[in-house]
Amino acid sequence: MKITVLAGGVGGARYLLGVRHWLQDSDGGDPAAQLTAIVNTADDLWLAGLRITPDLDTITYALAGVNDTTRGWGRAGDSEVVNGELAAWGVAWPWFTLGDLDIAASVARTAWLRDGVPLAEVVARLAARWDVGARLLPATGDEAETIVHLAQPTDDGRTELHFQEWWVRYRAALPAASFEVRGAAEARPSAGVLEAIAEADVVLLAPSNPVVSIGPILAIPGIREALRDTPAPVIGASPIIAGSVVRGMADACLTAIGVETSADAVARLHGSRTTGGLLDGWLVDTADADVVEGLVADGIPTRAVPLWMTDPATTARMVDAAISLAG
Amino acid sequence: MKITVLAGGVGGARYLLGVRHWLQDSDGGDPAAQLTAIVNTADDLWLAGLRITPDLDTITYALAGVNDTTRGWGRAGDSEVVNGELAAWGVAWPWFTLGDLDIAASVARTAWLRDGVPLAEVVARLAARWDVGARLLPATGDEAETIVHLAQPTDDGRTELHFQEWWVRYRAALPAASFEVRGAAEARPSAGVLEAIAEADVVLLAPSNPVVSIGPILAIPGIREALRDTPAPVIGASPIIAGSVVRGMADACLTAIGVETSADAVARLHGSRTTGGLLDGWLVDTADADVVEGLVADGIPTRAVPLWMTDPATTARMVDAAISLAG
Repeated sequence: MKITVLAGGVGGARYLLGVRHWLQDSDGGDPAAQLTAIVNTADDLWLAGLRITPDLDTITYALAGVNDTTRGWGRAGDSEVVNGELAAWGVAWPWFTLGDLDIAASVARTAWLRDGVPLAEVVARLAARWDVGARLLPATGDEAETIVHLAQPTDDGRTELHFQEWWVRYRAALPAASFEVRGAAEARPSAGVLEAIAEADVVLLAPSNPVVSIGPILAIPGIREALRDTPAPVIGASPIIAGSVVRGMADACLTAIGVETSADAVARLHGSRTTGGLLDGWLVDTADADVVEGLVADGIPTRAVPLWMTDPATTARMVDAAISLAG
Repeated sequence: MKITVLAGGVGGARYLLGVRHWLQDSDGGDPAAQLTAIVNTADDLWLAGLRITPDLDTITYALAGVNDTTRGWGRAGDSEVVNGELAAWGVAWPWFTLGDLDIAASVARTAWLRDGVPLAEVVARLAARWDVGARLLPATGDEAETIVHLAQPTDDGRTELHFQEWWVRYRAALPAASFEVRGAAEARPSAGVLEAIAEADVVLLAPSNPVVSIGPILAIPGIREALRDTPAPVIGASPIIAGSVVRGMADACLTAIGVETSADAVARLHGSRTTGGLLDGWLVDTADADVVEGLVADGIPTRAVPLWMTDPATTARMVDAAISLAG
């Protein structure tokens, strides 16, 4: 079975581990040939002259099994020699730490990008050292980054921030008025993205942040249309359980765009495919079983199953529910 | 006393430590205000998308007291995490190792350069963390790099190599036909270089490689002319002692340009200022006392003094001899 997943960072990585596990265990196939992840690139940034791609790195490291599971980001066993030096020279952001292994990846990536290598090929080269068991495609190789427009200016009078500054420095605590994926209108999907959607047997939306992870993927011209046109069913999983975010600060993002932090509000944000929306199906956690009936009535087939992605085998059962919902 | 020194890498660094020592000890002044080093930039290179400046780094680290004196290059106590990763990805050159602290400096430098900051300002920013006690000026902020034209092609058919590849990878063992500072004709001296020569009380040539360290500085249009026009005496020190190089592989460079590896041949390469050359004076080692008479007869006032730069105090005595030769 060919599965294409739209994914953000940590949540996307955990979900992909489950999808890969499901393909190996229940489908008996070769995930490397069957699993394609279309990864959010709107968190990316230039920092100290290096191109940083947080979601792609998080997913690559997790699938490679070299991620730091304690810290939740970066590579296991990393040091911070270079970061300390950059801080001493006042280069980069003091609140944005990169490990030496991370920086090595960024140096290699930046060197290849500056040589004209497309980001999708860069991602493949970086991942080739490991057996990631999936094809990783950046949503776009063009620079289209999330800018947060603030409800109130910062103390130093700024009215907008790069997503990373808002997220990492301010912990999403500054109320956002809106999110803009700057450059999205001119961005093109990476080579293979539209085909991966068109030729999939099923398209899954990881339970990533719907506003700043899944949203920016959909903002790349052509991707939403491909999702509408694909014969494959599109099945999502709620990033909200019992009115709370599973991880991260998606509630701050949902509030900013006027969407309630609930499993059914996110489904309605995506909409039913029968009425021009995205979804052929939606998974909510068993704690949210009460919203199933309403969503089904609104044309979104929904099931309540456990959504906590505690380990790949558990996550695989959630993927199994999505596949069975896809029919 | 205002002293301007033309310098290359390790030899230049040792010499500058001696000049700084002399200024503090014998002149009683503030070296930071009196000592200017014009540093060779023709060894510089782009590697893994980073701008590497070996001679500037070597001199900065040595004057800052953070250099690795055992290894002879890079910073003390450095690790090689990033370098190992770049090697695993096949980025950079496997025979060219950079420490993590080195790479941090290169990341900062490259970020600033790409922001349009001139190299001279970049060098000042990098050095500002330490009390280097000198003003360090790159000969040029433009890219003008030494290319070695080979007498015979390499096994893979190349007829020219970047200086670093010839020097570090092949240990200068491939016979060179000639050296070219590619880009020199269009390069401009860094801001302050011509003034530092014009306004000096004395200009000193460090006993650096005359062909690939001092030579490329002189190849930047305007610098040779400034040396001819300055009222300051120009005093050099031989990098050759008793027919052998003090360090490095200058003999391979001298042979390639048809110059004997001897203290007097290098002096004659530079030439007497009375006949349109560079030198108002020349120091040879006591082991080469027999060449003094001949050089003096050729219009190059010469003294034989100990030239082994074993420590800054010893080197300061050699500087003292140069200053006294300057009159």
